[in-house]
Amino acid sequence: MENLYTLSEIVDNKFKNNENIPEEIILELKKIVQGNGFIGMAQINPIAGNIEYNAKKIAKYIKYADKIGLDMVVFPELALMGYPIEDTIDRHPVIVQDNVKWLNCLAEITGNTAALVGFVEPRKPDAEGKKYYNSLAILKNGKIEGIIRKSLLPNYSEFNDYRYIEPSPAVGVQPAETLGCFDKYSIRICSKLYKNYGISICEDCWNNKEFFEKNLYETDPIEELSKENPEIFINCSASPTRAKKEQLKHNMLSFISSKYKTPIIYVNQVGAIDNSSFDGSSRVFDKDGKLLARAKSFEEQFLIVNPLQNIGKIYPLTKGLDKSLTEQKVFTLEYESDLERTYKTIKQGISDYFKKCGLKRAVLGLSGGLDSTVCAVMLADAIGKENVFGISMPSHITSKESKSDAEQLAHNLGINFTEASIKDMVDTTTSCLNNLFNTVEKKWNCRYNESFTPDNIQARSRAMFLWGISNEFSSCIPIATSDKSELYMGYATINGDMSGGFAPIADVPKTKLFAFARWLNANRKEKNAIPESIILKKPGAELAIDPKTGKPLIAEDALMPYEFLDEIIWRIENKSEGYYDLLNSKFVYEQKNDVSKEQKIEWLDKFYKRMSTALYKWSILPPSVIVEARSINKSDYRQPITSAKINYKGTSEQEIINSLKTIF
Amino acid sequence: MENLYTLSEIVDNKFKNNENIPEEIILELKKIVQGNGFIGMAQINPIAGNIEYNAKKIAKYIKYADKIGLDMVVFPELALMGYPIEDTIDRHPVIVQDNVKWLNCLAEITGNTAALVGFVEPRKPDAEGKKYYNSLAILKNGKIEGIIRKSLLPNYSEFNDYRYIEPSPAVGVQPAETLGCFDKYSIRICSKLYKNYGISICEDCWNNKEFFEKNLYETDPIEELSKENPEIFINCSASPTRAKKEQLKHNMLSFISSKYKTPIIYVNQVGAIDNSSFDGSSRVFDKDGKLLARAKSFEEQFLIVNPLQNIGKIYPLTKGLDKSLTEQKVFTLEYESDLERTYKTIKQGISDYFKKCGLKRAVLGLSGGLDSTVCAVMLADAIGKENVFGISMPSHITSKESKSDAEQLAHNLGINFTEASIKDMVDTTTSCLNNLFNTVEKKWNCRYNESFTPDNIQARSRAMFLWGISNEFSSCIPIATSDKSELYMGYATINGDMSGGFAPIADVPKTKLFAFARWLNANRKEKNAIPESIILKKPGAELAIDPKTGKPLIAEDALMPYEFLDEIIWRIENKSEGYYDLLNSKFVYEQKNDVSKEQKIEWLDKFYKRMSTALYKWSILPPSVIVEARSINKSDYRQPITSAKINYKGTSEQEIINSLKTIF
Repeated sequence: MENLYTLSEIVDNKFKNNENIPEEIILELKKIVQGNGFIGMAQINPIAGNIEYNAKKIAKYIKYADKIGLDMVVFPELALMGYPIEDTIDRHPVIVQDNVKWLNCLAEITGNTAALVGFVEPRKPDAEGKKYYNSLAILKNGKIEGIIRKSLLPNYSEFNDYRYIEPSPAVGVQPAETLGCFDKYSIRICSKLYKNYGISICEDCWNNKEFFEKNLYETDPIEELSKENPEIFINCSASPTRAKKEQLKHNMLSFISSKYKTPIIYVNQVGAIDNSSFDGSSRVFDKDGKLLARAKSFEEQFLIVNPLQNIGKIYPLTKGLDKSLTEQKVFTLEYESDLERTYKTIKQGISDYFKKCGLKRAVLGLSGGLDSTVCAVMLADAIGKENVFGISMPSHITSKESKSDAEQLAHNLGINFTEASIKDMVDTTTSCLNNLFNTVEKKWNCRYNESFTPDNIQARSRAMFLWGISNEFSSCIPIATSDKSELYMGYATINGDMSGGFAPIADVPKTKLFAFARWLNANRKEKNAIPESIILKKPGAELAIDPKTGKPLIAEDALMPYEFLDEIIWRIENKSEGYYDLLNSKFVYEQKNDVSKEQKIEWLDKFYKRMSTALYKWSILPPSVIVEARSINKSDYRQPITSAKINYKGTSEQEIINSLKTIF
Repeated sequence: MENLYTLSEIVDNKFKNNENIPEEIILELKKIVQGNGFIGMAQINPIAGNIEYNAKKIAKYIKYADKIGLDMVVFPELALMGYPIEDTIDRHPVIVQDNVKWLNCLAEITGNTAALVGFVEPRKPDAEGKKYYNSLAILKNGKIEGIIRKSLLPNYSEFNDYRYIEPSPAVGVQPAETLGCFDKYSIRICSKLYKNYGISICEDCWNNKEFFEKNLYETDPIEELSKENPEIFINCSASPTRAKKEQLKHNMLSFISSKYKTPIIYVNQVGAIDNSSFDGSSRVFDKDGKLLARAKSFEEQFLIVNPLQNIGKIYPLTKGLDKSLTEQKVFTLEYESDLERTYKTIKQGISDYFKKCGLKRAVLGLSGGLDSTVCAVMLADAIGKENVFGISMPSHITSKESKSDAEQLAHNLGINFTEASIKDMVDTTTSCLNNLFNTVEKKWNCRYNESFTPDNIQARSRAMFLWGISNEFSSCIPIATSDKSELYMGYATINGDMSGGFAPIADVPKTKLFAFARWLNANRKEKNAIPESIILKKPGAELAIDPKTGKPLIAEDALMPYEFLDEIIWRIENKSEGYYDLLNSKFVYEQKNDVSKEQKIEWLDKFYKRMSTALYKWSILPPSVIVEARSINKSDYRQPITSAKINYKGTSEQEIINSLKTIF
């Protein structure tokens, strides 16, 4: 059916350019779309809470699906509201009222093609439990034909469904009259299926008892639906991309379709909402679990399929989305397979944050180091090089190479560039502060012998410049360039390099950044934009001179080898390993280098000590893109700062007994 | 039983000073404590995740309760772990293993007195659902006698139980052997009661179907327990103080005890954990719902009661904790009744944050304005005046009065004080930035005509000074002085006044701050520490000159009257009112002032516009104390920043129809 997809790509492009779709294309599509089972998968990128924006988008797809004569057009979970919406619906319930109004009006524009539209549904006002359901409405021939409600509510990582959503007490389709007044007493005898479709929402298909070793919920809505022998399963989702998640998703959907001998159509949201990135990659599996169709990743798309006639197109999956599960069970420095996904996730994260917030421009410090370099490349690609201003802000420590590397990078990228020395700022601040410190010291006898103040003055002077530009020029924010490894170590200056309107690489570990820089050089249209010298130089903030070498301090000397550090982070995040697990495991770094036990203990102790004091910094980190399987992003991970004095080593029974003895 | 309480206060004081309790006091207490029903209520202040600290505290109370010969000693919810612990238990499971080890060792030190100790319990490893239970262990005679698990899991406001906790499938006591290996298949026939006690955890007593108009859950564990005719209900809680919550709590507990003709003992956590403040105020109601005993608020205490013999002492409740529900149904500027609670909440919030994080000193800018003034007073009271450094940092705009007010305040408080002009900083920064702006302008044709850059340079120069001191002197953080009204309006400078290690008054609206300042002057030991001129002057950041008056700009002129602003905030937070609700309601401000409809619309539009762009600032706000019923604190309220373009006015059906028409 090559012609079908050639035509639908034309439709797609017209959609994207907001152009009308020529009548002849519709007619040609209409000719192809004959018989049952033709479904339009509308993989859209909504703005959370902006009902009008989302509804108009949905309306276009509904109209065209109807013109083409499809059976049904399917949208992602909560398509009308956008997902996640979080507490907004509780504090500003007007948007919930609005999404119901728009839903009713959308129903009115439907014809013979049914539309499956996700929305936040108010429950019966006096019903026990939460205020809302996470629902789908079936719209057809000017009416709402039925409602499907989500039963299984994820409440881990970035998911927070259970805060406002009540689990549905019933699987399947409930009558339209129950909209806004449903509770467990309203369940009526009605078909679980809509026609021959078994319809569910996101998490509702994530609880197969044979597939998962451990289940999060008791019931399995898919199992229940399967008993009615649906011809096709449909699942509407908003499932973010995270390292290692995609293969799991593929295997699970394939398992379900082959287990129940029923094709499954999975429509996923695309786009970023704050810290969460949705990759789309909507797909169809046939009744034997074979992939029949897959939409593009990280793009809006309208994909027409027919699982009953085996019609579908498989667009190439973004590399890295298919990372296998086994691959991820051990730490590896072989990042290659995940770098395309990383690139698209960060690019989409930046561009959607800017677009959805109404921002246009970004300003960032270019130090000639790896972090700011990768940020600059990503910004150029995400918001356009003309909208990026890189500023080299040398201090007395900055080397000539750093300055020329920064300039070369800006030149290669074609972004705006200037140099602005912070020397005067540093001198004035230092002199003011020294006076102040002497005064304070007279009252407080606790001045540090070794001080990081001079380092921080430099980082903060730079941030002062960047925020100044943000204040003076419209729709412009400064960029926080901290990476994940350094944030774990608190190796970032408050109101300095960790400050900004957005933090693109806050979830990318340093060793991955090196691989990523090489990948960017090899895979972007303009090759080798990043000067080799930037990739080769050892990372260091160039804020202080190492007394031992007389040269700028190298970060690995202040911290520990990044290869070692990143493996600690990976093991804690992915395997919940503790201090002694780490001590007793053989690290990749140890396979290549001799590390004494004393050295390893020193590094581990330093890690835990620094991480404990970094908790505060994590709490004030700007919005960023979640990239890895787990992160320190505050929408994903929360730890009380006052719990910083956790005993990460644990206690032996004997120590406990001894400790309790001391009490009396 | 006056003597009982005189003696237990001696015990309390010895506890607090870490001294041994003289044997003769124990003996005297022992004489009084005769017969059944004597319970020790151990209202403790734990550190989240610091098991050793918490366990040792618990051990002391266990030992003394045993020596005195009490029936039972009762601790708050999750006493061993501290509440909330959030995601820490998932990423660092070693602390869960540790809390079980310590629990077992605590059991070993128990004698005839049973101890009720809250802990995080791992579930059967392969069980469906979350990994943990929120449990209580009954420890006695060297053993664990039984386990009680929480059934109802709050997941709103600052509560997040459902992220890691599985609801218990059974109410009542399960055998000790089920520890760590319980699931819904392990339920055994055993007594729901422990002896004659009906024991529950926090939320489990918050679902009475007669008391609440709307219930959050289906089951009512107290109702189930009541069927076994317990002689006494016991509820272990960690329930934060919020405006308007206490009277509700009082009424509900009183209702339960009188409904079931059963006394209830309610033991609540005290102390602050990051943003959440727990007030203690543990209490006992007799079988007729009459208050029989109440522990102190905002203090650790060991209170001995006997509800069977009507023995209890009622310590005075902190004023404001008893604020009635009716009072809170409308907005009022009469804050008086809530100011003592506000004072203690903020004081505890600061002192616990400092203590638990290992901090000692605070530095803050003293502008002579209300915000920094109230922060200085609270810091002096919370961490000691010698640990506070107030810095007056005048610019060219700062008036003589502001400087002398700041100095006078510092003098009255006895805190450290100095003056450090930011003139040089501002001059250097301005000159550097002007050069930079001219360069940027050549590429970006979007420079603002009206610029806030000069204002922000001042605020950021001050923050540079404060963070410098924090870097140079040990255990010292700068204080963010923003108040709630101004944070709602985004009227706070990023990396300026809104930056700091802690934000004491971020949840106090401006009109309340005025009342609070007067209250501080009247109620602190040193009267009138706040110069009258500070309270009388109109708030303004003194960052810019109003061209109309030639004097520093008044905040109310830039924003709107604070009385009006604070009522908008209150109505949105407490009543979820929308734009038209606000427009159509008569505000308190309108009862005293003529406000045209146009003026009101202008203010409302300004409010929503400014609030939308303030979302980013809320996301990077430092840890602060939640004071009001609802807040913008990120542990309490989450809204995607990319949802800033919400249509707060809602849409009419006609507008929707017109809008959809435009699509084709």
